[in-house]
Amino acid sequence: MKKAVVLLSGGLDSTTCLAMAKAAGFEPVCLGIAYGQRHAVELERARKVVASMGVRDFRVVNIDLRSVGGSALTADIPVPKDRPEKEMSHGIPVTYVPARNTLFLSLALGLAEVVGAQDLYIGVNAVDYSGYPDCRPEFIRAFETLANLATKAGVEGARFHIHAPLSGMTKAEIIHEGVRLGVDYGMTHSCYDPDTQGRACGRCDSCLLRKKGFEDAGVPDPTAYTTEGK
Amino acid sequence: MKKAVVLLSGGLDSTTCLAMAKAAGFEPVCLGIAYGQRHAVELERARKVVASMGVRDFRVVNIDLRSVGGSALTADIPVPKDRPEKEMSHGIPVTYVPARNTLFLSLALGLAEVVGAQDLYIGVNAVDYSGYPDCRPEFIRAFETLANLATKAGVEGARFHIHAPLSGMTKAEIIHEGVRLGVDYGMTHSCYDPDTQGRACGRCDSCLLRKKGFEDAGVPDPTAYTTEGK
Repeated sequence: MKKAVVLLSGGLDSTTCLAMAKAAGFEPVCLGIAYGQRHAVELERARKVVASMGVRDFRVVNIDLRSVGGSALTADIPVPKDRPEKEMSHGIPVTYVPARNTLFLSLALGLAEVVGAQDLYIGVNAVDYSGYPDCRPEFIRAFETLANLATKAGVEGARFHIHAPLSGMTKAEIIHEGVRLGVDYGMTHSCYDPDTQGRACGRCDSCLLRKKGFEDAGVPDPTAYTTEGK
Repeated sequence: MKKAVVLLSGGLDSTTCLAMAKAAGFEPVCLGIAYGQRHAVELERARKVVASMGVRDFRVVNIDLRSVGGSALTADIPVPKDRPEKEMSHGIPVTYVPARNTLFLSLALGLAEVVGAQDLYIGVNAVDYSGYPDCRPEFIRAFETLANLATKAGVEGARFHIHAPLSGMTKAEIIHEGVRLGVDYGMTHSCYDPDTQGRACGRCDSCLLRKKGFEDAGVPDPTAYTTEGK
């Protein structure tokens, strides 16, 4: 079985991406990144996901992005709440982490070289939520070009392929695909600003998009939001 | 003064690069990376370099690449010693760290966004030692393309410039330029495999290239090698 490195945060998108990599016949090598994110609880969920999905190789790289800062996820900047959909779909939010996907793909690329994989999976999604520049297809293509120039494997003839299978899908379509592939979304975590017990706030952009995705998909949302009943 | 992010390892090349960035009129924001390298002593030297050169902003990002491995610098793979020059100039050595410069430039790019810089300096060098794929000019150009697509700043009209001023220079030329700019090479560290007191082995590729650089430049080498007198 050919290996593929799958970037796995423990969120809805990357977990679906993992299921799709498996369905495509790859043996997944999962990579989680502890970057000082406010919602590091997502990596505990990633551990549950890999255990339930029979992934044999899961690595977590620690990198302290708090020394760089510049984002609501890595610095003392409040996470926006209750933003109307119209506002969310315009501009780049303060939860943008500078150059994050470039960094994550670099780490995935290094790991791919080490384990002998030429396929990388990243759960970026440019339809529902186009605010992040490093989620766009043109970014993914530019990274693929770079990957082949940047590496020993590339020089020796490998051709890296960056798979972004969620790229053209809505959140509802992603959920349908995940359900079809047997993903248990109850294990996943999307919230940017969970409470100390890791419970989703229900009000940040990520929670709002997740909720709406389940609604649009007509699938019950298994998430326990702290705002429920209010 | 315009800011530039300078990747600084504390080695001969990156220290010269820093001097060149200053000479070009930039206010340097230096970035060191503690990646689990065998020769982490280089970062202590980087601290001396920034202090002596009046750099006001020096950050160190910690990232544990030992969980990825795959290199003599980050895994239990011996560092090659006493390699003849002909051998060094062919192929990619085991000291290659998978995707390292892609990763380093990603971190520099993120920091550039945060501090409002559009200029990045990296001390790669493709003439004396062409073994590392991510030191080639075509790699640098591909990263520049990526940088403008990957970032909020790029979307908003910034144009990142990756400066690799040592790219076409021999080690001797780099040393001449550094001496001209007042660099104290006695502060810098190049060795891949120092002893527990941080002294250079004098026998790894990096030491051999450094020694030869000083010889070719006709400049006394200030390095105390542990092999001296043997």
